Amino acid sequence: MNKKTYILDPIHGQIEIKEIKIIESPLFQRLHNVKQLTAAHLVFPGGVHTRFSHSIGVSHIAEKYGEHLFPDDKHKIKLLRIAGLLHDIGHGFGSHSYDDIVYSKIFIGVKKGHDCQRIEIIKYMKSIVEEYGVDINDIINIWNNKNPLMHSIIQGDLGADRLDYLMRDSYFCGVQHIGTIPVQRLINNSLIKNNILHYNIKIFDDIKLTLSARYYMYKNIYYHKTSCSASIVINNILKYSIEPLNLIKRTKNIQKFILINDTTLIGEILANNKMKICQKYCFDYLHRKLPKLFWEKITTDYESDIVEKNKIINDNPNLIYYENKNIKLTTNIYLNNNGKSILFENIDQKTYHILRLYKTYYI
Amino acid sequence: MNKKTYILDPIHGQIEIKEIKIIESPLFQRLHNVKQLTAAHLVFPGGVHTRFSHSIGVSHIAEKYGEHLFPDDKHKIKLLRIAGLLHDIGHGFGSHSYDDIVYSKIFIGVKKGHDCQRIEIIKYMKSIVEEYGVDINDIINIWNNKNPLMHSIIQGDLGADRLDYLMRDSYFCGVQHIGTIPVQRLINNSLIKNNILHYNIKIFDDIKLTLSARYYMYKNIYYHKTSCSASIVINNILKYSIEPLNLIKRTKNIQKFILINDTTLIGEILANNKMKICQKYCFDYLHRKLPKLFWEKITTDYESDIVEKNKIINDNPNLIYYENKNIKLTTNIYLNNNGKSILFENIDQKTYHILRLYKTYYI
Amino acid sequence: MNKKTYILDPIHGQIEIKEIKIIESPLFQRLHNVKQLTAAHLVFPGGVHTRFSHSIGVSHIAEKYGEHLFPDDKHKIKLLRIAGLLHDIGHGFGSHSYDDIVYSKIFIGVKKGHDCQRIEIIKYMKSIVEEYGVDINDIINIWNNKNPLMHSIIQGDLGADRLDYLMRDSYFCGVQHIGTIPVQRLINNSLIKNNILHYNIKIFDDIKLTLSARYYMYKNIYYHKTSCSASIVINNILKYSIEPLNLIKRTKNIQKFILINDTTLIGEILANNKMKICQKYCFDYLHRKLPKLFWEKITTDYESDIVEKNKIINDNPNLIYYENKNIKLTTNIYLNNNGKSILFENIDQKTYHILRLYKTYYI
Amino acid sequence: MNKKTYILDPIHGQIEIKEIKIIESPLFQRLHNVKQLTAAHLVFPGGVHTRFSHSIGVSHIAEKYGEHLFPDDKHKIKLLRIAGLLHDIGHGFGSHSYDDIVYSKIFIGVKKGHDCQRIEIIKYMKSIVEEYGVDINDIINIWNNKNPLMHSIIQGDLGADRLDYLMRDSYFCGVQHIGTIPVQRLINNSLIKNNILHYNIKIFDDIKLTLSARYYMYKNIYYHKTSCSASIVINNILKYSIEPLNLIKRTKNIQKFILINDTTLIGEILANNKMKICQKYCFDYLHRKLPKLFWEKITTDYESDIVEKNKIINDNPNLIYYENKNIKLTTNIYLNNNGKSILFENIDQKTYHILRLYKTYYI
Repeated sequence: MNKKTYILDPIHGQIEIKEIKIIESPLFQRLHNVKQLTAAHLVFPGGVHTRFSHSIGVSHIAEKYGEHLFPDDKHKIKLLRIAGLLHDIGHGFGSHSYDDIVYSKIFIGVKKGHDCQRIEIIKYMKSIVEEYGVDINDIINIWNNKNPLMHSIIQGDLGADRLDYLMRDSYFCGVQHIGTIPVQRLINNSLIKNNILHYNIKIFDDIKLTLSARYYMYKNIYYHKTSCSASIVINNILKYSIEPLNLIKRTKNIQKFILINDTTLIGEILANNKMKICQKYCFDYLHRKLPKLFWEKITTDYESDIVEKNKIINDNPNLIYYENKNIKLTTNIYLNNNGKSILFENIDQKTYHILRLYKTYYI
Repeated sequence: MNKKTYILDPIHGQIEIKEIKIIESPLFQRLHNVKQLTAAHLVFPGGVHTRFSHSIGVSHIAEKYGEHLFPDDKHKIKLLRIAGLLHDIGHGFGSHSYDDIVYSKIFIGVKKGHDCQRIEIIKYMKSIVEEYGVDINDIINIWNNKNPLMHSIIQGDLGADRLDYLMRDSYFCGVQHIGTIPVQRLINNSLIKNNILHYNIKIFDDIKLTLSARYYMYKNIYYHKTSCSASIVINNILKYSIEPLNLIKRTKNIQKFILINDTTLIGEILANNKMKICQKYCFDYLHRKLPKLFWEKITTDYESDIVEKNKIINDNPNLIYYENKNIKLTTNIYLNNNGKSILFENIDQKTYHILRLYKTYYI
Repeated sequence: MNKKTYILDPIHGQIEIKEIKIIESPLFQRLHNVKQLTAAHLVFPGGVHTRFSHSIGVSHIAEKYGEHLFPDDKHKIKLLRIAGLLHDIGHGFGSHSYDDIVYSKIFIGVKKGHDCQRIEIIKYMKSIVEEYGVDINDIINIWNNKNPLMHSIIQGDLGADRLDYLMRDSYFCGVQHIGTIPVQRLINNSLIKNNILHYNIKIFDDIKLTLSARYYMYKNIYYHKTSCSASIVINNILKYSIEPLNLIKRTKNIQKFILINDTTLIGEILANNKMKICQKYCFDYLHRKLPKLFWEKITTDYESDIVEKNKIINDNPNLIYYENKNIKLTTNIYLNNNGKSILFENIDQKTYHILRLYKTYYI
Repeated sequence: MNKKTYILDPIHGQIEIKEIKIIESPLFQRLHNVKQLTAAHLVFPGGVHTRFSHSIGVSHIAEKYGEHLFPDDKHKIKLLRIAGLLHDIGHGFGSHSYDDIVYSKIFIGVKKGHDCQRIEIIKYMKSIVEEYGVDINDIINIWNNKNPLMHSIIQGDLGADRLDYLMRDSYFCGVQHIGTIPVQRLINNSLIKNNILHYNIKIFDDIKLTLSARYYMYKNIYYHKTSCSASIVINNILKYSIEPLNLIKRTKNIQKFILINDTTLIGEILANNKMKICQKYCFDYLHRKLPKLFWEKITTDYESDIVEKNKIINDNPNLIYYENKNIKLTTNIYLNNNGKSILFENIDQKTYHILRLYKTYYI
């Protein structure tokens, strides 16, 4: 009897765990303490799930893709599993806030610093990862799109990452009417042509439904006005702690990075009596005292609306500006139409922007 | 158009919120930072839901009971709603560990100290609560079983608390095959006779299924060997922080109690360089380095198994002993059989005990 | 203890039944023997649910709308409940096929004859229905849009009928990723202005999601190529039985109409040795020997594609033509934007047509 | 790209179909017209699912068992898949009623005649089945328990048949709180020892939950008083049609057997003017005019309760007696406890009997 280890997941059921030592490592266990949606629970109280279960889920979907696309290549399947497992290992406290406030000072000019940090981390974990017979450079190449086919399976428009977070975020937040997608059908109808991931055109509606699910999840959950309002507060927490808590140095030191997370950082700030302003922002977050929306514009015409925004803020200089710019449904989806490749251009969906002004209660 | 406020819950759907100020208070918001199942996510990664969503859910079920039992008494329904909303407001960091380590020193001789703490808290919140036209003493009487009928609706064997946590815990952990219960059917078949909550005997099987669901949830989730192992670690975290962090004094001060929770305490410990031993336990918790099970006995004969346990521990003095004693399915369920009351005695299910010995890796 | 009757529904849970005698009548029980989706189970084997459970579901949603919109008007709520319960009572064997082949000969010039038949039926059931204290003319006026407000609650673009069938059809067919919609949220955000049903503009995305769900359900389930192929066969069954089985006369006689349904008609045909051709079509249906798709065009330009179709059929005169014409997402949805009414014009979604040619194997 | 065929199932998702010709055969398509639960929809309106989807589901679970137990033996997996697919192919109109009334006259002394009929059918289908490279005798041996290991995988106490019907029946009826079971966990913890199917003792609670689910499904769904009442009517329909419709001869002729099903038989009876009494029973079934329960006893002491029953019926000679005798939770479940085999004896659950008397309205 071959002894197998399973983790029970509310989205995918029993998931067999093959790289146990990676999962048992403190760097991976840290993901138990990084919420997937940062502050979405302040609007959707169920949305407290973590990057731990998401990472397990992405690894699982990646494996399913692998079993479908490379049924006889156990090594490729393993690479996909590990690339999925560790794809979010670099996320900091507050996820995208950490990218904006902390990582931007470490990885200059990079928008999503956690994508750089994960490379530092996998190098740090090299011996554990390579115990499973893979070269970490192969994983890094998947992440960095040096291996575009494998990259698209993990992080493409219909890749394992997206398929998992749509299902998972909607399940935990209770918005299954928005994020439920046909995961099995997408995988079962994927194929490789000219070394590019394609999908059978007969599931074109399923693809559009999935893109649409993502569009509405962004608009209604991830960019919910209150989620963004909480981001303002979390950004402030990070701005006011980056120096006193030495976040840059500690983030660069992977061993120390483990202890910067949702379960540790706020307590550390509250224990530090020299951080009064930062503590105030922590209280705001803990007590859900968030800036209230004053004005918003969801638009495809950024330039003209910035003018409008500036006019308003001129008259109300205490308003806080927060924007989500260049939100788009990407279109790198290749369809297979009886042997002919078609690149799906999602022209109905224009790039849009959310501009918001919030009232502050501190003056 | 009457403006209503809803919270979206993955278990019950849209729940109308009628006592908004209570929910907006920092003491209630604190529940966002108290996990419902403390450390169950170390076994069931989805089980990270909080006492916030549970409390909203209990309030909702309590309201449904009220609408069924007292369709014309809006005040009673409101009392039930608020008694449900605040029933868990006293829980500390680590829930039952806090009862054992901290509350036991404040509320001497009391097993579940959070039940005393909630009374202190509702007194502190008196003005907010009474704004909604209720007397807090009526709430306290429900909790304290001075009002046995209302008490059974909230905390009885088939009360709102249990119905919610069975559904919720199984949903988030992904064990719906264990905890799914017929909530609507139980409520729709409840009635009052001689001022005692009864259930129509025709749903006797539904009642047994619900009791059985609870039995298996305890055995497989709440008392899972790894959950208990984590409790050992959390108990140690509390033992070693109770003095240096002044937990007793801060717990008695309701305003300060707000900041003792899952998001603050560990960070505070890690920031305190005088707490090296306690920090080590925090690392164990954060990195899931938990004592491993060496021996266990699930038994209905406590005395004889204690003898066996003592024998083993004599030979292995470094083992850690952990027990869950007197676990039972209570039997205060009244059935209505065509006008005749029957007290259901659940004789099949005996009180049982779980005795466990864990290996420590510290010597 | 007030004795209530419930029906258990997999979509809505326990539904209290208030008009029991209507439900117990043979005309309503007949709906157990009329499939909701006629032949969809030949593609989606779970899709065998009946108009019985759908009708109960529509009645339930109608009641929820009523309780929200007219909380103090029990009579209006009752009218909605009954109008929902009986809205599909006129459907014949094969639903839309019966409209096309049989009802079109009874109710000349009417496209959906079952809407006329239901009026005949409610008149026939007058005494049972009016026992519940309603005037059947009020029900008929709801159906006939003489009462446009109530009509929109039952049969409007977001009315009880649609909300139920989207949820139900997707649940039974297993396509929850297509048809799951936010029923509660739609109802909770509905309101009446100027005697017109409106929805709060803040749920505009939920509305678009619901319209989109309907669009994709039509395209992928209701108008699935094999469902339509089965319709060709069912149309033939009806064409070849309308005379020998006297369907017109029996349909006009409400008492006899009860016995024309999915459980009776085919057996009757098979027992009639003079109906050899019709029997062959029955075998085709029973054994799933359906015409295979040869060509299809899903288009917004009907005229030009008809030309193309005619060209093909000229060369292949044995092909069978089947079309679904003028499929559109209607746009009579009024939004309330802070007191201002807006009529939502769904301009993204153009009216489209499905043109199909099937190969026959009979020549 | 290997072209695969999938069927979408609401329970198991996309199921790959490997033996298409078997499924396309009229004998298998017939299962679309045999309800899984005969008349349960008269109590649970959603319960109209068919043996078609159940058979696909059993085949799927059997395959999963096979992939777990014999990962390298594609032939064994195929045998399991086909044995599952065809295990219910012999069911007649009204399933267990057909066993009692019709098959009992063909297969003398056999309780479940459909188990004999399926052997006749697979012999009839020999050429189609054997096209897939299996010997039909191997399938028959699985069914007949000549191959006890494979038999237990298909039809054992935790075999594919039971696992599927518990999940499926509860989903369609809307009683997931009764029938939801941990299918994956059972399969993942199955193993073979001494050529006997075992389960790891660590899932003992899951096994008990599954047996308990079955117990409550029987008591509340399959043996619901109204389901049994409908069985009385269906038995009468069969008794009064067996001769005039030549059911025995037609059942023995496999080609003709295809047309005896839920979609054909009642219509045939209604078309036959010489079957007035039988028609009356058909009307009772169609219009849900069922005998009402007068007395019932659910008991473990058959003999003494029969005395009581006889006493009552003596005074009320027009009552109809209906019993379900010897209902038990079987106990042939082998557990593996660290290499030691344990046969689980389910002593808590005694064999029980349901005795019922119904009032008739025909005298």
